[in-house]
Amino acid sequence: MRTTFHQELEQIDEKLIGMAQLAQSAMGRATTALLETDPVLADEVISDDDTIDALRREIDGHILRVLATQQPVAGDLRTLVAGLRIDRDLERMGDLARHIAEIATADLPFGAVPVSLRGVIHSMNRAALRMAERAKEAIGYRDQGCAAALDRQDDEMDSLQAALYRELRHSDVTVRTALDLALLGRYYERYADHAVSVAESVEFEVGVSV
Amino acid sequence: MRTTFHQELEQIDEKLIGMAQLAQSAMGRATTALLETDPVLADEVISDDDTIDALRREIDGHILRVLATQQPVAGDLRTLVAGLRIDRDLERMGDLARHIAEIATADLPFGAVPVSLRGVIHSMNRAALRMAERAKEAIGYRDQGCAAALDRQDDEMDSLQAALYRELRHSDVTVRTALDLALLGRYYERYADHAVSVAESVEFEVGVSV
Repeated sequence: MRTTFHQELEQIDEKLIGMAQLAQSAMGRATTALLETDPVLADEVISDDDTIDALRREIDGHILRVLATQQPVAGDLRTLVAGLRIDRDLERMGDLARHIAEIATADLPFGAVPVSLRGVIHSMNRAALRMAERAKEAIGYRDQGCAAALDRQDDEMDSLQAALYRELRHSDVTVRTALDLALLGRYYERYADHAVSVAESVEFEVGVSV
Repeated sequence: MRTTFHQELEQIDEKLIGMAQLAQSAMGRATTALLETDPVLADEVISDDDTIDALRREIDGHILRVLATQQPVAGDLRTLVAGLRIDRDLERMGDLARHIAEIATADLPFGAVPVSLRGVIHSMNRAALRMAERAKEAIGYRDQGCAAALDRQDDEMDSLQAALYRELRHSDVTVRTALDLALLGRYYERYADHAVSVAESVEFEVGVSV
């Protein structure tokens, strides 16, 4: 029996939600590995990123097949184009979690995060996980107000990054630690940006914006 | 007279090449602003980024219109999907050049780049401009070997970034400077990654890869 067009779209959505779940879990575990000095967990996050990358290729292939064979128009076309954008953002979110795990692996003997800065890293992680959760819901429910909500959460993340850099400038950490922390701050902030971008693609899909 | 389908594709290509040109010019000028302490030039790069962002929206809209009205298949469909990927990468390249200009603006009174590290920043800029040039050619000539060539240049960029971070770790710069330099290194490196990604989309378009 031939799979109907809307079954195809549902399958693609399920894969996207699965990818969002993996990108969220990767971030949570990368932060735990970083703050709790767990190199085994860090290595796990790094190798699990291959699964996220493979899912993206699978989803891209699936969408291209549907585009080529079904020649969808209007709303269906937007759904598929949105899918191509969303899987890329989710792949990048996975990469950024991996980068955090890589810093955890490389610098654990030294301890990458000084005690005075652990609080802000904790908060950035919580904000990132909340945003990933919201982005996942946006995909699942075709949520129209999601981009505005995620934009507000993104402002919080930007404030946290600014706070991290401010504290860092006034601390007496080594250059090595400053380097790691600068990159860590950037990784959390970019992760959040990609979550916003997922929500924007969902709104594009439901016709709120271009 | 109705514009033919292939005229539409040519127009989209011209816009993409124009965008690549702007992203390349932004990087060159951002680096000059940074190394030659030129806040006026830095502000110019920052405000010019709006043009790149607007071009992306224009190209996205153009591609979606063509997808919806012409229902292309096979190679033509791949060309349009590649266009949606390429304009996103070029927009990000523009953003990264803007970020470099922002560091130039914020830190010029202090001088962001210590003399000992100017050489490697110069080299990263040259590598970035070369890669942007190659990516632009790839779009224009549907160049099949471009991804491999850009991958090799990207390895050079990664080595330069590693060299920057190594030198930085052994220098006695302030935490503030370490922070700026860490981010600068990351911006050049990501710019290069997006140039590689443009080439990969061109190869996808001509059917070399998925």
